[in-house]
Amino acid sequence: MSSVFSYNTRDLKFILKEWLPTEEIFAYDKFKDYYSKDDIDMMVDQVHKIAAEVIAPCADEMEEHGVKFEDGKVICAPGATKVFKYLQENGWGTSNIDENAEGTIPEVVFCSLMEMIQAACPAGTSSVGLTTGAARLIQNFGDEKLKQMFLPKMFDGTWSGTMCLTEPTAGSDVGDILSKAYPTDHPRIYKIKGSKQFITCGDGDFSENIIHLYLARIEGAAPGTKGISLFVVPKYWVNEDGSLEDNDVVTTAIEHKMGLHGQPTAALAFGDNDNCRGWLLGNPPGPDGRAEGMAQMFVMMNEERQGTGIMATCVAANAYWNAKNYCKERVQGRPMTNPKGERTQIINHEDVKRMLMLNKATLEACRAMIHKCYYYLDIAHNDPDPERRKWASGKVDVLTPICKAYPSDEAWGLIGESIQAHGGYGFCEDYPVAQAARDVKIYSIWEGTNFIQAQDLLGRKWTMNKGQTFQDFLKDIDDFLAANKGSVPELEKEFANLEKAMASYREIMMAMGGYLAEKKFGYLQVYARRILTATGQIYGGYCLLEQALIAYKRMKELGPDHYDYNFYYGKFLSAKYYLRNVVPYVWYIAELVKDGDSSIIDAPTEIFEY
Amino acid sequence: MSSVFSYNTRDLKFILKEWLPTEEIFAYDKFKDYYSKDDIDMMVDQVHKIAAEVIAPCADEMEEHGVKFEDGKVICAPGATKVFKYLQENGWGTSNIDENAEGTIPEVVFCSLMEMIQAACPAGTSSVGLTTGAARLIQNFGDEKLKQMFLPKMFDGTWSGTMCLTEPTAGSDVGDILSKAYPTDHPRIYKIKGSKQFITCGDGDFSENIIHLYLARIEGAAPGTKGISLFVVPKYWVNEDGSLEDNDVVTTAIEHKMGLHGQPTAALAFGDNDNCRGWLLGNPPGPDGRAEGMAQMFVMMNEERQGTGIMATCVAANAYWNAKNYCKERVQGRPMTNPKGERTQIINHEDVKRMLMLNKATLEACRAMIHKCYYYLDIAHNDPDPERRKWASGKVDVLTPICKAYPSDEAWGLIGESIQAHGGYGFCEDYPVAQAARDVKIYSIWEGTNFIQAQDLLGRKWTMNKGQTFQDFLKDIDDFLAANKGSVPELEKEFANLEKAMASYREIMMAMGGYLAEKKFGYLQVYARRILTATGQIYGGYCLLEQALIAYKRMKELGPDHYDYNFYYGKFLSAKYYLRNVVPYVWYIAELVKDGDSSIIDAPTEIFEY
Repeated sequence: MSSVFSYNTRDLKFILKEWLPTEEIFAYDKFKDYYSKDDIDMMVDQVHKIAAEVIAPCADEMEEHGVKFEDGKVICAPGATKVFKYLQENGWGTSNIDENAEGTIPEVVFCSLMEMIQAACPAGTSSVGLTTGAARLIQNFGDEKLKQMFLPKMFDGTWSGTMCLTEPTAGSDVGDILSKAYPTDHPRIYKIKGSKQFITCGDGDFSENIIHLYLARIEGAAPGTKGISLFVVPKYWVNEDGSLEDNDVVTTAIEHKMGLHGQPTAALAFGDNDNCRGWLLGNPPGPDGRAEGMAQMFVMMNEERQGTGIMATCVAANAYWNAKNYCKERVQGRPMTNPKGERTQIINHEDVKRMLMLNKATLEACRAMIHKCYYYLDIAHNDPDPERRKWASGKVDVLTPICKAYPSDEAWGLIGESIQAHGGYGFCEDYPVAQAARDVKIYSIWEGTNFIQAQDLLGRKWTMNKGQTFQDFLKDIDDFLAANKGSVPELEKEFANLEKAMASYREIMMAMGGYLAEKKFGYLQVYARRILTATGQIYGGYCLLEQALIAYKRMKELGPDHYDYNFYYGKFLSAKYYLRNVVPYVWYIAELVKDGDSSIIDAPTEIFEY
Repeated sequence: MSSVFSYNTRDLKFILKEWLPTEEIFAYDKFKDYYSKDDIDMMVDQVHKIAAEVIAPCADEMEEHGVKFEDGKVICAPGATKVFKYLQENGWGTSNIDENAEGTIPEVVFCSLMEMIQAACPAGTSSVGLTTGAARLIQNFGDEKLKQMFLPKMFDGTWSGTMCLTEPTAGSDVGDILSKAYPTDHPRIYKIKGSKQFITCGDGDFSENIIHLYLARIEGAAPGTKGISLFVVPKYWVNEDGSLEDNDVVTTAIEHKMGLHGQPTAALAFGDNDNCRGWLLGNPPGPDGRAEGMAQMFVMMNEERQGTGIMATCVAANAYWNAKNYCKERVQGRPMTNPKGERTQIINHEDVKRMLMLNKATLEACRAMIHKCYYYLDIAHNDPDPERRKWASGKVDVLTPICKAYPSDEAWGLIGESIQAHGGYGFCEDYPVAQAARDVKIYSIWEGTNFIQAQDLLGRKWTMNKGQTFQDFLKDIDDFLAANKGSVPELEKEFANLEKAMASYREIMMAMGGYLAEKKFGYLQVYARRILTATGQIYGGYCLLEQALIAYKRMKELGPDHYDYNFYYGKFLSAKYYLRNVVPYVWYIAELVKDGDSSIIDAPTEIFEY
């Protein structure tokens, strides 16, 4: 048994109750009659219990059983069904987006809940997240008929959903997909033909029907992304009377993956027998060949990107706490302060503390920025003031690629350190950290590789609204610095580092602007991922420093004998560590970007033969 | 089939023929009648062929079969035997250290050969490396009788060897082992009692007897490492007539590892039935309780540490070349310079080139420093001048922890990028990069964790001979800078960066000296691993820049149309990339060290609950 759920809720509660002004969110019409901030403890504790007692026990079974593909059928572990059904039937899944439902939970709170649930069984929960994304597309862009046909069963755990973008020959460049859609007599029903690959939860016996949200080009539409339309293509066609019939969707293979063994990743053939149909979402392409599919799919894609940030964070956080548990038990060596004394638990060694601190601080930064993003999402979805909705949307736009890529980039190294902290046991599958590494690697790849995220940040988010949205994003940090610098003498150096990093970041932007002006477009790629990392570090540093001010105040109020003191002291130290050891990386990156080394651009591809 | 051997020999030949003055080595008495520099191509090509045609085909079979443990017997894949026997019987293994043999190959050349062989089957070759280390201990410290009894069969592939240090409760702190040895009537034979864990190749059907080099404390010896003795404990006792009998060595478990599935890692019980005997190497403990075992074992340990550097480098290098192969085939997206043009192979995208370049440059730096270390080993073993032997030994002492830890630390992130370059396919076990990641993680842990290496560097290597050895090590770089700065205008910035990094490194040493003077011993741990990384980057940068000067000269001589031009241009660009993008990390580390953030030291362990 290698999976161990070891999640602590204190930072989640701190974020929801003490850091973010969630009372604003609870005050929205949608929530105000149902919940208040006072309910947060109850919700977090209840879901922690569900994660530990219902979800986590399925994880090992799913890992050991894996996914079997026999006689064209995809057979998952019983746990896959249990996780899916339990979450969907009990309101901890897709039904939370039901706009007609009462008592749905704010996104920012749901973010905390999903973090725990996904940590308990990373392979088992994408089925829920993808169903939610697919259902949201139908809810946003489908007509009443489609909503009636699909949503109730997607909300209640009868059916699941997927997103079908990637094809064997088109992943990152989705504009080059080959899938085609042909009109039929019914104006909204099209014949579908194409192959899709790497479809997460693309098939499986955990659900009775699988509703694929499918990108294809209608005959005659424009080339590239602008001509792509979005279809609802169920595995089994849903007749008017609700009965199901075969829809010519065939699973051709299941991937043998490095991790997430319990989660089916399918290659699917649609319409090989010319008998696959799908419902068009929205309008057919206009006379100019332009279609609506990509813009629609981005609603789901952005949602899955934010969700991927949660997944990377929670898998790494669970590995960190497992490392902590091991280091508290394992006796080895003597403390440096007393080399002739008794042997000690290795958690007392400074290098072990360093590995734990790097994890703790970085993961708290990731958790903070992701929750902030979901907080803005709640405003963007619910605020009565359209200006404020727009303002919040801008924040979400900027934060989405950062929240997807920064945690999923860092997780690989962080889990590497959690393995390292276990010594030789970390390399053994009896302990949970090896699997955490195997599971986590996909998050930097799927939903748009982290390079795609970096391109999105630099190419789109830096420049949207003539750059104003991103300037506002930076101004939040400037304003925070101006308002709080000097307020806590013990954090003087930390404030100075963030201020210096901000200056470095603006140098990075200037230098990139210079390269573009000189038409040195290659640099946009060469530095993109490093700049995304620097952006995550600045924003993470800002969030942690803001949290540290609250923690510092609470430390003074409570005093060191209070049971909760060490939590606040830990928050204070996380900020110190991160601002002093991680944020300076931003000025290192600034030096590299300003230097403008051209070795990558100059390199003929032949040199990589050697 | 996931394992693909895709190794290029050009950099190995460059190192052996153009960079290192191996003619000095070939001129030593031991080699001069047998080989010269002219034989390098033949040896490298022959072993490349062996690696590709004999060794690599065993890798998948070993991975799939794994290691079975049934009825107390350890059953390996047939390939495990094939690899072991082939290398040992054909002179590509342990017999190369036979000091009585003729025609053995210099260590520095053997390093190149092992790099290829290990890349072809990482799980299959530790059996050879450990047999070599064990045989060397018997050769160095055994009497004639022991040598006669064990060495011939260890040289010819009949028997294998292991190193038995780690116990269930003592890994990094080997001084706390519980294994005991009790005198018998025979002055050199002791009764052995104890449990050992994580013993690589500790049992298996690939060899007819397993010769354990075993650390234990003779009753009455001093506590800690100084009282430990070293024993030769065969799995089957070897009688005077050469017959074998049971020696009460029982395998109690086989580890289920994240990677290296074909390699048996055993937990062993010695003398549970009071019937296990071992031969003492060297002398029993003196009247002060001091024993010779640790000093002896360090001969093997250092050898395995250097070997671990090769393993980490070659697993990552093979992953890099596999990524290159994939990126040459995979068509996706359009070039930035022609966004409306034809789709292109992804190797033409700058971010993909960045991932490949980071791999190429870093791995060439690792390969260079490791070969340099083996070059010094040849001098230390063979030079007629004792002063020069001592000088070379000092270099080996400093380079050993760097060559073990720097490559094995970097490999995790580098292979992460090789996975990333594969997109979704990188997460699938059908491609070889996922397994490379799973295999490589142990190298930062075994043979002394990389923190142990960093402690060795700072605590021992910085200070040995009153610091002179390390000052000489740095002076090599200073001398290189003084002699060559300004010689190639195109490398002006690269020289300047190395010079600046050297200044930063001395600031690091000063700052650490300051902390020690203030008795802030915790900082020795807090910064150790980052300082080791900085040391590797400085030394790697020095090696690559030295190589770039040669490459630059050859580029000018050959001109761009020569078939070998791109190799030299690639070397030149590797140096540029590394000195401009990696070496500046040293001054980032210097800032952190000088800052002296105390968050880790201040942290009560309770904060990691959150």
